[in-house]
Amino acid sequence: RRTAAQSAGQRMDIRGIYPPIATPFTEKEEVDYLKLHDNLQKYAKIPFRGLVVQGSNGEYPYLTAEERVEVVRRVRQALPREKLVMAGSGCESTMATVQMTEQMARAGADAVLVVTPFYYRGRMDSKALIHHYTQVADSSPVPVVLYSVPANTGLDLPVDAVAALSQHPNIVGLKDSGGDITRIALIIHKTSSEDFQVLAGSAGFLLAAYSVGAVGGVCALANILGPQVCQLEELYVSGQWEAAKALQYRLIEPNAAVTRKFGVAALKQAMDWFGYHGGVCRAPLRPLSESEVKMLRQDFSSNGWL
Amino acid sequence: RRTAAQSAGQRMDIRGIYPPIATPFTEKEEVDYLKLHDNLQKYAKIPFRGLVVQGSNGEYPYLTAEERVEVVRRVRQALPREKLVMAGSGCESTMATVQMTEQMARAGADAVLVVTPFYYRGRMDSKALIHHYTQVADSSPVPVVLYSVPANTGLDLPVDAVAALSQHPNIVGLKDSGGDITRIALIIHKTSSEDFQVLAGSAGFLLAAYSVGAVGGVCALANILGPQVCQLEELYVSGQWEAAKALQYRLIEPNAAVTRKFGVAALKQAMDWFGYHGGVCRAPLRPLSESEVKMLRQDFSSNGWL
Amino acid sequence: RRTAAQSAGQRMDIRGIYPPIATPFTEKEEVDYLKLHDNLQKYAKIPFRGLVVQGSNGEYPYLTAEERVEVVRRVRQALPREKLVMAGSGCESTMATVQMTEQMARAGADAVLVVTPFYYRGRMDSKALIHHYTQVADSSPVPVVLYSVPANTGLDLPVDAVAALSQHPNIVGLKDSGGDITRIALIIHKTSSEDFQVLAGSAGFLLAAYSVGAVGGVCALANILGPQVCQLEELYVSGQWEAAKALQYRLIEPNAAVTRKFGVAALKQAMDWFGYHGGVCRAPLRPLSESEVKMLRQDFSSNGWL
Amino acid sequence: RRTAAQSAGQRMDIRGIYPPIATPFTEKEEVDYLKLHDNLQKYAKIPFRGLVVQGSNGEYPYLTAEERVEVVRRVRQALPREKLVMAGSGCESTMATVQMTEQMARAGADAVLVVTPFYYRGRMDSKALIHHYTQVADSSPVPVVLYSVPANTGLDLPVDAVAALSQHPNIVGLKDSGGDITRIALIIHKTSSEDFQVLAGSAGFLLAAYSVGAVGGVCALANILGPQVCQLEELYVSGQWEAAKALQYRLIEPNAAVTRKFGVAALKQAMDWFGYHGGVCRAPLRPLSESEVKMLRQDFSSNGWL
Repeated sequence: RRTAAQSAGQRMDIRGIYPPIATPFTEKEEVDYLKLHDNLQKYAKIPFRGLVVQGSNGEYPYLTAEERVEVVRRVRQALPREKLVMAGSGCESTMATVQMTEQMARAGADAVLVVTPFYYRGRMDSKALIHHYTQVADSSPVPVVLYSVPANTGLDLPVDAVAALSQHPNIVGLKDSGGDITRIALIIHKTSSEDFQVLAGSAGFLLAAYSVGAVGGVCALANILGPQVCQLEELYVSGQWEAAKALQYRLIEPNAAVTRKFGVAALKQAMDWFGYHGGVCRAPLRPLSESEVKMLRQDFSSNGWL
Repeated sequence: RRTAAQSAGQRMDIRGIYPPIATPFTEKEEVDYLKLHDNLQKYAKIPFRGLVVQGSNGEYPYLTAEERVEVVRRVRQALPREKLVMAGSGCESTMATVQMTEQMARAGADAVLVVTPFYYRGRMDSKALIHHYTQVADSSPVPVVLYSVPANTGLDLPVDAVAALSQHPNIVGLKDSGGDITRIALIIHKTSSEDFQVLAGSAGFLLAAYSVGAVGGVCALANILGPQVCQLEELYVSGQWEAAKALQYRLIEPNAAVTRKFGVAALKQAMDWFGYHGGVCRAPLRPLSESEVKMLRQDFSSNGWL
Repeated sequence: RRTAAQSAGQRMDIRGIYPPIATPFTEKEEVDYLKLHDNLQKYAKIPFRGLVVQGSNGEYPYLTAEERVEVVRRVRQALPREKLVMAGSGCESTMATVQMTEQMARAGADAVLVVTPFYYRGRMDSKALIHHYTQVADSSPVPVVLYSVPANTGLDLPVDAVAALSQHPNIVGLKDSGGDITRIALIIHKTSSEDFQVLAGSAGFLLAAYSVGAVGGVCALANILGPQVCQLEELYVSGQWEAAKALQYRLIEPNAAVTRKFGVAALKQAMDWFGYHGGVCRAPLRPLSESEVKMLRQDFSSNGWL
Repeated sequence: RRTAAQSAGQRMDIRGIYPPIATPFTEKEEVDYLKLHDNLQKYAKIPFRGLVVQGSNGEYPYLTAEERVEVVRRVRQALPREKLVMAGSGCESTMATVQMTEQMARAGADAVLVVTPFYYRGRMDSKALIHHYTQVADSSPVPVVLYSVPANTGLDLPVDAVAALSQHPNIVGLKDSGGDITRIALIIHKTSSEDFQVLAGSAGFLLAAYSVGAVGGVCALANILGPQVCQLEELYVSGQWEAAKALQYRLIEPNAAVTRKFGVAALKQAMDWFGYHGGVCRAPLRPLSESEVKMLRQDFSSNGWL
């Protein structure tokens, strides 16, 4: 069940920028695979390392198990081989997560991104989470990336749990969307003896995350301003700090607008403005109000993007 | 699609005490329908108004869609006709909730209990939640009970949304597990022109909830101390306040122990002590540690129950 | 240093209703003792058990140490002897609290109300708080009432600390403003072997608090609707539950409006409407905006008070 | 009332590293000015830009008004002229803050650090805070630095308020102790047209803060590892990112231990280990327990500092 790289003791290299892609729907709220395909054609031309399918921005909690797997399959088919497909396979139960992970791997996922289970968050301590992720990683045919997103889950994957899990040969990294930079730096410090890779979960703190050792980002904003987010990576890698800083500043407000401020509906609205298929969300997510649309536009235009 | 009672403009009477039943599993974490049946035989003899199937204590987020429906079917079959089966049919998407509601009604549920969707809690404002519940109630073959459980969801169903939804002919009440008694009283005040019924979501504040107009309770502790919780109801109804108060005091710590303090694993552990089938939880929920078991026992024994 | 009652092993009886009075200021933000005196004349005619001077509604953090003592002195002078003066003497350090307590006792306070210190809330555990309150109660010439107000302090006085402190002969009770009715009931349960008295810290949950054993309330709303809050007490004491409930309902929104919703500025604005001197707050508290005034009025008028 | 620099339209340059010094006490909890003087002699030899007197680590809420001013006077006298003395003059009321600011300026403070008032945090919106700081800055004889420390105050100074206040000629910067790096970057972006300087409020995110444009830090850990924190500054300034990163990692756990994890008592305990006078805190702060001391030591030793 191990890949050649794993057998050789090497971990999959996941460094780079990933958009956590949105799921387009028809007016009847069915998955619109044609529009998805269109978006993928465009994303294929941007220097992304790969795509995250069914992060929080993919409305994964609103998809059926079948849809979740099918979307992964379509993305893998549409995308050039060199782009990684990182598929969100997290479910509440360990059992369901193990199954979903296997199905997504079979559908072509190169790696899986596994969100913390969280409904019983009061009991999701390090012991429970280490057990959960170990079960999943033991059985997964592909490498596992941990995923901590407290804004949605109300739960931060504890640092000591990350440190313990970093020793598992099939766990290659962490996507941290919380944005607590001290925590991110500490995690990198505590996992430095392993070949463990941390991805920033948002464009808002991407440069700061690079400065303390992160290797890339999964950034909602990359669905809209993909080339620009990749440019920030390039400026960092080439040591152009002043230019990187200036670009970072201009990404913060648009990023906040399409994430914590107005959510997925705003992400899709802005995708429409920038030539992608965004469209409606599944209910209960609602379209933005007129005043929200205005504020969203302002967050892009005041930073010179519209 | 409306029942006779509804056509006559009457709402289903849901007053009384309900245990939100646990789901027994085999050692392999499969649903153990035999043990479930055993528990039901015992519950049938307690003066409960009915049972809640797949509230938070039923580990519903860990069941597959098929299991969720099947458990409801088995409960309805095993239970005397006069006991209500209130089935938890909430899912994250409106579409899935509508479908699950229909399936559970077909499986015999007398009413459905619909938890607030919450993954995108930042966008689950009154507008979104009113839309969601209206869609569900419009299409549901059976009456709908709203369900607000902020400890798990991080979201309180807003008072104004409850007030608006109370006017829907197919929405008959609310289970409020947050325990903010001022909020509960205000909701009862704001819905008093409707025939709207509020159930306390926990035995810890049951008497206080009665004092401001609640009509019953869905109490995890009733899985263990069912007759005693029903006795508290009886003492309140017959105006024996001092005895009610004395009993209420003794229920607080055992109740906290099997809910927010140690969770479902503690509920099941205590069920074992009191002659019911509790057993293991599905992963990632873990069994209690030895010291937790000791503290749990102490919370029952220091209040005279063990 | 002990009073006769204490020596006899009896604790001061504090049952009843108290307004936590506001501090009127002149346009120059100086304490307006004339207006204070006017208000006191009116309060003296209402069946209050006494007055709380320098609870949160008295803007005590904005008064100098000298003003705090002087206001207590003036209140004691203006008030009939049979009304209790409960003075807020809490400061951040134990040393300052001990001194302020002595000064207020000398100025005529019958009891002191001591808020939890909270700036270093991460370290204000039971051990630290028990030490603090024990030092204060040991040296206080008058009985001490504990005061927990998490909305302002971000800190709940832990139940086990209250239970331990209830055994101190000079600590007679607790004002709990958090409104968690399960916690309030548990505290009463855990302190029942002592002669320990719990006061509800708000009119919003007064009836519920009575139902689980509280003996009165310190209610901001009593500054405005004093006779009505006292009537709720009377209805409870005489066992008229239905009337009590109906009155309780109508107090919730006005109470919320003058406390957590719009704060002290709203309390003072409403005092002006009801014939008391409210007036301006000290900066940085600002007057209400026009739209806030409208909403405030609505919260009173929709409940039949204006 | 303006300095020459201000008249010339220049703002005081505050870039650099500052320890927010602790206040030593005698066993009787009186301010120990001799020990303070000793510490200052040592700090004078470290390349700090200056000292913060009465930040949260100075136990300022436990000092009397007189002590607060006297400590500032002694620090100014003991310190070489080229070191800045930044004095914490914040009080809850605007009036008291204005007075304290004037007294501290007269006692020799070069600048004042003004914490957000917070007791009525529900009403401390941008409008109230802008009014407060404008009053203080209008009357202050010395430059004002804003101070946001949500761990203690439960309140973040809003970004729009910072942006508005950055235009005041007598407000020169912000100490941000919250550690939300996205917010820090946004504040720097939004104030970039002004000559506004942001200081990181902790050593835990110092490098990340530099990476997005901060100009220095007020770091509790600098009381203990002063030369090392100054070295991090030097590595950043000279562009040695890898060495800076390696050093940053080793500062995170010791820093957390003496701040949010164990608080001021831990800061003082570690000061004792490193040759400074730490000693006891004023009550209600308690000494560390034995097991806490062990964990504290571990946080230093596992990072190579002990």
